[in-house]
Amino acid sequence: MADTADDASALAAGVASGDRRALGRAITLVESDRAEDSPRAEALLAALWPRTGGSRRVGVTGPPGAGKSTLIDALGRNLVARGESVAVLAIDPSSPLGGGSILGDKTRMGRLGAEARSFIRPTPARGASGGVGSHTAEALLLCEAAGYTVVVIETLGTGQGEHAVAGLVDSLVLLVNPGAGDELQGMKRGAIELADVVVVNKADGEQRVLAERAVSELTSALGLFARATGEGAPAVLAVSAAEERGLDELWAAVEASLAAARASGAFERRRAQANERTLADAIERLLRSELSAPAWAVERQRLESEVRAGRLSTREAARRVVALARRGA
Amino acid sequence: MADTADDASALAAGVASGDRRALGRAITLVESDRAEDSPRAEALLAALWPRTGGSRRVGVTGPPGAGKSTLIDALGRNLVARGESVAVLAIDPSSPLGGGSILGDKTRMGRLGAEARSFIRPTPARGASGGVGSHTAEALLLCEAAGYTVVVIETLGTGQGEHAVAGLVDSLVLLVNPGAGDELQGMKRGAIELADVVVVNKADGEQRVLAERAVSELTSALGLFARATGEGAPAVLAVSAAEERGLDELWAAVEASLAAARASGAFERRRAQANERTLADAIERLLRSELSAPAWAVERQRLESEVRAGRLSTREAARRVVALARRGA
Repeated sequence: MADTADDASALAAGVASGDRRALGRAITLVESDRAEDSPRAEALLAALWPRTGGSRRVGVTGPPGAGKSTLIDALGRNLVARGESVAVLAIDPSSPLGGGSILGDKTRMGRLGAEARSFIRPTPARGASGGVGSHTAEALLLCEAAGYTVVVIETLGTGQGEHAVAGLVDSLVLLVNPGAGDELQGMKRGAIELADVVVVNKADGEQRVLAERAVSELTSALGLFARATGEGAPAVLAVSAAEERGLDELWAAVEASLAAARASGAFERRRAQANERTLADAIERLLRSELSAPAWAVERQRLESEVRAGRLSTREAARRVVALARRGA
Repeated sequence: MADTADDASALAAGVASGDRRALGRAITLVESDRAEDSPRAEALLAALWPRTGGSRRVGVTGPPGAGKSTLIDALGRNLVARGESVAVLAIDPSSPLGGGSILGDKTRMGRLGAEARSFIRPTPARGASGGVGSHTAEALLLCEAAGYTVVVIETLGTGQGEHAVAGLVDSLVLLVNPGAGDELQGMKRGAIELADVVVVNKADGEQRVLAERAVSELTSALGLFARATGEGAPAVLAVSAAEERGLDELWAAVEASLAAARASGAFERRRAQANERTLADAIERLLRSELSAPAWAVERQRLESEVRAGRLSTREAARRVVALARRGA
């Protein structure tokens, strides 16, 4: 126990001093599902808890191919140049089986990663919806404890993903393609309802005209839509991550959304909801890890074989397992 | 209790007789998260359990816009014409907030829905990964109990989604666009590793040549890839859902994948894994609903306010909540 506390407090000191390697190890620790890592992770978080909460938490979401990594790379460097320090948590939605894209991932956000005041961390997508779970929330808190002034969470926009990430961040940026006007038909309400800033990316070369048109189409569509829900319409703007145009305007829009949220009380409400959600995720994760404990394995296997033989429904088996937990097996 | 049993057994009889409205109500019942619905849902599933397991369970996944609904509509009618009866569970990944696409969903699978031997059900995407959870598994089982010989689960391919659906079905069909050759770079391994059949859709008009080229590119890429993992390569074929070409070949490829799986023992393994997963999901869902019970609310709110005030980490609060559950609060 003394070892656990010593170890966690050394790691906490490393994180607090801004040591990137310590931060990386700390995130690995809180991501671990091994029961024996849990006391150290809890001690680490307890030690760093008072240092959390100080960053601007920004979600970046959008469909595959919208250029999220390229945008974050460019925006992140822009922010670092202005004195911010930027941590990026990139949720990797690839399968638990393999991971990575089929032809190998290109080095992502390589230029931002080369900056001293940056930290880039791919986090595996797991159990929880859209891959954003309590481990993502805890990683974010650790980045704050390490002193990062901006924490970006990148996630694939698929309905589940952006809803989960919106529950963690202060401001959500939705990235769309220059042809987004045509995509409105298929675009799910989810992301649109949740976005604070909508960015039409790739506004460069031949696509610049297309992007400008998408901005005006989206602006009018979102204006109508936002009025229907009673909330303010999100800002819509065109950006070229490749040519690094529109980045100042993008960040100004994020800052404006934060200022408006602080004024209206929405900022505090979102932070409180993020806490609640993180707690709920942590409870589920803890229960799941307890249920996979060896003590349960025998009874669980017996119930599974009953289910397989068609003698017991999964629902009845589930009720029996939970009753077992209640009795403290 | 007698009422619960009577009610559930009447509903079970309706489902077993193939009454579509009864099936619809039965699915609504098992999807319910209300604690008071749980005994009826359990009784219903127990009554129908022996009638389950008899369908071919087919997953259809792919990126947004790949034409999943159109393909299922065409394939489903093709199967009905050959004497099959087809149930479709379409996972709707839209946000819990609003749901539906921003400009309103087109009527999906309208022609298949008009057939007597078909059943189409949109299921909401919830908690579990990719929106596929124990409620999806239970809905599938109810469709089997109603006598459907083919059950199709449609889900958005995003890494999470196809992995979850692959865990439930006997054969997974991955749908890609005619330009899929160019998309290989960004295509996640997940879907490819899991697919039994890869379909290049929209092989019609000007895109036909593009689609044929994608088939040969995918075939060679997947051949290489499959050899690396030691598994057989999935079948790759071009289909035009709009012109209803290639549907017989598609179904033959699905049947061939099922026959190969039966011969190798993979079929039984997948079914056993589906059971295990469904049980695990049911356990989580039950625990979650127990944790939201009013009895816990006061203590939970107290812990949440401690977290908000920065006095307690979410992880420590989670441990206290679970300890409370252990004591049988």
